Amino acid sequence: MIIVMSPEHTDSDVERVVERLGERGYGHHISRGEERTIIGAIGAPDHEKEVVAGQLSVLPGVERVVPILKPYKLISREHNPRPGTVKLGEAKFGAGQVSVIAGPCSVESQEQVLQTARAVKEAGAGVLRGGAYKPRTSPYSFQGLGREGLEFLAGAREETGLPFVTEVMDVRQVELVAETADCLQIGARNMQNYDLLKEAGACGRPVMLKRGLSSTIQEWLEAAEYIAAAGCLDIILCERGIRTFETATRFTLDLSAVAVARRETFLPIVADPSHAVGMSSLVTPMALAAVAAGVDGLMIEVHPRPDTALSDGPQSLTPTAFKELMPQLRAVAEAVGTQM
Amino acid sequence: MIIVMSPEHTDSDVERVVERLGERGYGHHISRGEERTIIGAIGAPDHEKEVVAGQLSVLPGVERVVPILKPYKLISREHNPRPGTVKLGEAKFGAGQVSVIAGPCSVESQEQVLQTARAVKEAGAGVLRGGAYKPRTSPYSFQGLGREGLEFLAGAREETGLPFVTEVMDVRQVELVAETADCLQIGARNMQNYDLLKEAGACGRPVMLKRGLSSTIQEWLEAAEYIAAAGCLDIILCERGIRTFETATRFTLDLSAVAVARRETFLPIVADPSHAVGMSSLVTPMALAAVAAGVDGLMIEVHPRPDTALSDGPQSLTPTAFKELMPQLRAVAEAVGTQM
Amino acid sequence: MIIVMSPEHTDSDVERVVERLGERGYGHHISRGEERTIIGAIGAPDHEKEVVAGQLSVLPGVERVVPILKPYKLISREHNPRPGTVKLGEAKFGAGQVSVIAGPCSVESQEQVLQTARAVKEAGAGVLRGGAYKPRTSPYSFQGLGREGLEFLAGAREETGLPFVTEVMDVRQVELVAETADCLQIGARNMQNYDLLKEAGACGRPVMLKRGLSSTIQEWLEAAEYIAAAGCLDIILCERGIRTFETATRFTLDLSAVAVARRETFLPIVADPSHAVGMSSLVTPMALAAVAAGVDGLMIEVHPRPDTALSDGPQSLTPTAFKELMPQLRAVAEAVGTQM
Amino acid sequence: MIIVMSPEHTDSDVERVVERLGERGYGHHISRGEERTIIGAIGAPDHEKEVVAGQLSVLPGVERVVPILKPYKLISREHNPRPGTVKLGEAKFGAGQVSVIAGPCSVESQEQVLQTARAVKEAGAGVLRGGAYKPRTSPYSFQGLGREGLEFLAGAREETGLPFVTEVMDVRQVELVAETADCLQIGARNMQNYDLLKEAGACGRPVMLKRGLSSTIQEWLEAAEYIAAAGCLDIILCERGIRTFETATRFTLDLSAVAVARRETFLPIVADPSHAVGMSSLVTPMALAAVAAGVDGLMIEVHPRPDTALSDGPQSLTPTAFKELMPQLRAVAEAVGTQM
Repeated sequence: MIIVMSPEHTDSDVERVVERLGERGYGHHISRGEERTIIGAIGAPDHEKEVVAGQLSVLPGVERVVPILKPYKLISREHNPRPGTVKLGEAKFGAGQVSVIAGPCSVESQEQVLQTARAVKEAGAGVLRGGAYKPRTSPYSFQGLGREGLEFLAGAREETGLPFVTEVMDVRQVELVAETADCLQIGARNMQNYDLLKEAGACGRPVMLKRGLSSTIQEWLEAAEYIAAAGCLDIILCERGIRTFETATRFTLDLSAVAVARRETFLPIVADPSHAVGMSSLVTPMALAAVAAGVDGLMIEVHPRPDTALSDGPQSLTPTAFKELMPQLRAVAEAVGTQM
Repeated sequence: MIIVMSPEHTDSDVERVVERLGERGYGHHISRGEERTIIGAIGAPDHEKEVVAGQLSVLPGVERVVPILKPYKLISREHNPRPGTVKLGEAKFGAGQVSVIAGPCSVESQEQVLQTARAVKEAGAGVLRGGAYKPRTSPYSFQGLGREGLEFLAGAREETGLPFVTEVMDVRQVELVAETADCLQIGARNMQNYDLLKEAGACGRPVMLKRGLSSTIQEWLEAAEYIAAAGCLDIILCERGIRTFETATRFTLDLSAVAVARRETFLPIVADPSHAVGMSSLVTPMALAAVAAGVDGLMIEVHPRPDTALSDGPQSLTPTAFKELMPQLRAVAEAVGTQM
Repeated sequence: MIIVMSPEHTDSDVERVVERLGERGYGHHISRGEERTIIGAIGAPDHEKEVVAGQLSVLPGVERVVPILKPYKLISREHNPRPGTVKLGEAKFGAGQVSVIAGPCSVESQEQVLQTARAVKEAGAGVLRGGAYKPRTSPYSFQGLGREGLEFLAGAREETGLPFVTEVMDVRQVELVAETADCLQIGARNMQNYDLLKEAGACGRPVMLKRGLSSTIQEWLEAAEYIAAAGCLDIILCERGIRTFETATRFTLDLSAVAVARRETFLPIVADPSHAVGMSSLVTPMALAAVAAGVDGLMIEVHPRPDTALSDGPQSLTPTAFKELMPQLRAVAEAVGTQM
Repeated sequence: MIIVMSPEHTDSDVERVVERLGERGYGHHISRGEERTIIGAIGAPDHEKEVVAGQLSVLPGVERVVPILKPYKLISREHNPRPGTVKLGEAKFGAGQVSVIAGPCSVESQEQVLQTARAVKEAGAGVLRGGAYKPRTSPYSFQGLGREGLEFLAGAREETGLPFVTEVMDVRQVELVAETADCLQIGARNMQNYDLLKEAGACGRPVMLKRGLSSTIQEWLEAAEYIAAAGCLDIILCERGIRTFETATRFTLDLSAVAVARRETFLPIVADPSHAVGMSSLVTPMALAAVAAGVDGLMIEVHPRPDTALSDGPQSLTPTAFKELMPQLRAVAEAVGTQM
C-alpha cells in the first residue's frame, strides 16, 4: 500500500506513519516529490492490510492510502494460474468447454419440472435449474415449494439424468439442499450474506455464486474468497446483470465483467441473461453475446407455459424457443473457439 | 393494474386478456384510443397481483402492464395515516422527536465500549450502537467478537442506562441477540435476506432496517413489509447511502429518500451519515443536512481512537467531535420545528 | 396518457381534470376501481403531450400521470417498420450487413492516419475514424489538430478510398466538417447538445449519434428524433458504454440496449467497444459479443503505436491485433446469420 | 504518478519505464516490495500528465498507473486557499453568505416573469432566474422564447432591481446573453460541451456551472477549470442532482458533493433542489438540507401557476410556498452559522 501525504504534512507526520508501519511489521520507502511526499509500505502481512490502511488514513498529515495488492488470494490467477473447471454430472464448465443450465425459475409441480427437464435435455442442456426456495421482493408473492420442490427436482434428475442446481437462501437450508442438489446457488441478493457463504463453502458441494446486483467485480471475487476460505474451490461465478439507471431492461448484463473476472481468477464464469434482461425477447441476443464474450456456461430460464408461471414468466423461454436457440449458441461457440 | 395493448393487437387478444382477468376475479374497463387500446383491471385481490401482472404481460398482443397500487400495505400511510413512533428506552423516534444513536462500528473491548458509551451519553445520545457480528467484504478482516461483544454492550447499558442496537446477520443469531439487545439491526447487505427479515420480525424486539445499497425506496418498503407481516410494526427505517457512480464518497447519502419514504409510510426514518460518506470530515455536514431534511433520528459512529479502530476508523468521530456536533444538531432540529 | 387519482380525490378533482383535457382537445374514459379512480386521455395531439402531462400532474387529487405513447415518431419502428440502412462509401450498415469503422482516437499526423488507414483497410474495415476536434476532460490535454486533422483524414481517404467519420463538437464546426467528412459524429458528451443536433441534422450528411454516458435508451432515441426532425434520416446509433458503479472498466457496454433500440427504431445500431471498456485487452471479447448481439457495425480504435498515442492509447488495438480480430468477427457474424 | 509493475515484469520493463519518464522530464524512485515493484514519477509537468500516464500504462510489464495529483489547478484550494465569493448585484455567494436565486423554469411572458420577480424579491431572493433558451429532451416540446425571453428578464430586472441568471446552450448565444444577463448558466447537459465552456469563460460575465447528471465531482471541477483557463474565476458551482438507479425522484441530490467540492475548491457552491427532486413537495426539505450542509446559495423554481407552466411545473413552488420557505431557510442558516 502507498500512503500519500497531504501538502501541509510535517516531518513528524511522516515519522508517525513510519513508526506505525514498523509496529505492524512493514518496511517503507519514502519518496519526496515537488508537490507530494509518498510513503510505500513494504511486505504487508495480508490479513491485516485493510485494517491497517484504515488506521493510517486517519493519522495527521495523511491525504489518502492507495492499496496495491488485490484483497483475494485463493481464487486469484496470481496464486493459481491454471484455468479451472467445475463438473456437474457430465457437464463441464471452463477450459474451453461451455455448458448450459436450463429450467424454470420456480419449481411449481413434478409435472412442470419433468416436462421442462425432458425438453431442455433433448435440446442439449447439461444441467437443470429450478428454485425451491425463492427470494421474492413481496412477502405476498409465491415463496417456493421448499423441501417438496427439492424432491421434484430430484425426481427429474432420476428420470433424465440431469444434475441440478438450486438456490439456498438461509443457512438452515444448506444441509438439506447439499444432501439433494448437485450444486448450491447463492443468489444475487445474498452475495454478501457472509454466514451463508461460509456454510455453503463448507458443505462439500460445488457452489454457484451470483454477482450481487450492485456489487463490484472486486466484491464478487471477495465473496468467492469467503467460499474458498471455507474449503470449496469448486465455485462457478455467475454474472446476472447489475443495477444501473436504465429501466428499459430489468438489469444491465455486464459482459465486460466476464473478461475482467477471467483476468483475475481461474474460476469458471457463466452468465444468466434471463434475469439480467427480464424479457424473453432479449434473452436470445444476450445469450449469444455472452458466448461470444467467452463465458464458460449459460443459465437460461425455460418454462413450458410462461403465461401461467408463478414467477418470472416474462423472461422465460418456451421449450420451442430454447430448442431454436441451442444450435445458434453452438455456432457462436465454435466461431470463438470454444466447445459446447 | 392497466394492460396496454400493442398497436398490432387483435380483438381476440383483447378477449383473451379479459377472460384471464375474469378467471382471477378481476373486473375490467376497455378504453380504445386512436393509437392504443388500454384495459383497466378492477378489484385486484392483493396477494396475486404481481404474479398475474407477469402472466398477462406475456399474452399475445400485450405491450406492457402498468401497476397502479403500491406493493406494500401494513406499513403504508394509506392504510395507517398516523405518524408512528418507536421507543428504545427513553429515546423516542418519530412524531417530531429526533434521537441519536452513537457508538463504535465494532465492539472491540469492554473498556472501548464503556468509554464510548459514557462519552456519547454525556453528549446527549439516547441509544448506543456497536457491532458484535460484522459483515466484512474480506474473509481475512476482523469478523467481530460475537457473543462476547453482546456482553460488553450489555455491560455498557448496565452502567450508563443506554439501550443498544446491534446487527444480526444470520437467522441463528436472532434468538441470542433478541435476548440481549434493545433493537435488532438488519444491515444493508442483508436487506433482501428474506428469512432473516421474517425471523427478526417475529422475535419480539424492535427492528432497524437499513436500506440496501442499491435498493429502491419501494424495495426497502417491501422489505419492511416482510418484517411487518411477521408481526412487528416497531420498525425504524435507516437510510445509509446508495451506490452510485461517484467514488469521492463511499456511498451517496440519499436524503430525498427520507422525504419520499415519509410520504409512503408512517414508520420513523433515521439516517446514518457515517457509513454513507465514509470520511469523518463529511459526517458533520451530512448529519446536519439529515436533521434539516426531517429525519426522526441519526446513527453516528464514534470511536475513542479512530486510528486504532478495527473497522471503519476513517468515518468515526472522536468523542470530542461528537460532543461539538450535538448542539449544532439541536439548533437545526429547532430551526425545522423538531425536538432533539 | 393515464391520470391516476389519489385515494383522497373528490368528484370536483375529477371534473377539473376532465375539463382540462377537454380544453386541450382530449377525450376521456373514467374507470372507478375499488382503490383508485383512473382517467384515460384519448386522442392526444403529440406535440403537447409532455407539457399537458406536467400540468395535469399538479392538479389537486392527481396522484400521477402515466404516459402511454413513445415520445419519438419519425425514427420509430411503429411509424416506419422497414429495417433501415445507412451507406458510407461502399460500407453498408443495417439489414443484415455489418460494417467496421476503425482508426485512431485522435488524428496526430498525416503519416499516422495514412499508416492506420492502410492497415485497417487491408484488414477489412469499410470506414476510417479519427478525431480532429477532441472533447477532453482537462483543458491542459491535447485538444486535437482541428482543420488540419480534417485534411489529414481527407488525404487518407484519397489514398485508400475509405470514407471517414469524425466528431463535431461545436455548431460552428458543422459546415466545415460537413464539407469534408462522409459522416458527422455526435459524441456522448454532446448527445443532449440540442443546437448541435439540429445543425448536424440539417447539414446534408449522415450522422452517427453516440449514446450519452448516462442517457436512457429513450433519451437517446429522442436525441435521434431531433436530428430526424431537422431533416436527416441517415442516422447511425452508437452504443458506447454507460456509466455505472463499476470502476474496473471505464464504462459498462450495454449490449441489451442494442436489442431494445432495435425493437423501437429502424435506424442501424453500432457499438464502440473501445471507449466502453477503456482497455485494449477487453476490446476483442466485447467486439465479438456485440456482433453476436446483432449490431449493424462496430467502431474500433486502432493506433500504430498505442504507447505514443496522444489520447486513449490504453484502449487502442495495434494494427496486428486488429487484423487478428477481423476474421473472428466474421465468423461470429456468420454464426448469427449476418454478413460482414 | 505511481507506476505499479505486474508480478511478471522483467528488469528491462522497469528500465523502459524509467527511460520514458526521463525523456518526459520526470525523475523517479523505485521501490521493490515482496509482491510488487512500484515506480514513483517525480516532478511531473502538469500539462502532459494525463497523456504520459496513458502511454506508460500500455508498456510491457506495467499493471497500472495511479495518479497522485489533482487534474485541476486554477480553481483548487491547494493553489488558492482563500474562500471565494461571487457577487451578482447585491447578492453575495460564499464566505458564509447564502443567497437565493428564484424564478420560473422557462420565461413564458413579460407578465409571468414580472409577477414572479416581484414575489420572490419580496420573499427575500437576491437573484432572478428564468430560461430563454431551453434544453428539452423532445424536439416537440416548447423550446423557449429566445431573445424575447432575455428582454422579459431584463424588464423584470429593471422594475425590481434583481440581477438575473439564464442558461446559454450554444456558443452562438454567448455574446447576446453576456450583453444582457448578469450571470450565464451552463446547464447539466452541457457541462462537458467544452467549446461552450471556453466561450462562456471568456465573455466577461460570471458563470454558474451545473454539475452534469452523471459527472463525478472531479469532472465537474475539471469543467470549471476550463472556464477558469479561459479567464473567468467568478464561477459558481451548482449541484443539481445526479442520475442513479432510484426512480422515485427525478435525480438524486448529492449533498455530500457540496462538502467534497468545498474541500477541493475555493469557488462558491449552490444547490438546485428543484431539478434534483422534480416534485414541489420535496423541494422544501431538500432546500433546508442543502443549507444545513453548507451551501453558499440555492436555486429554486417558482412559478405563479404551476398547473399552466410550459416546463417543469411539477417541481415549481408557488409564490406562497416560496414565501413560507424563506424564513425556514434563514433559521437553518443561522443554526449552522451562515448568513442569509
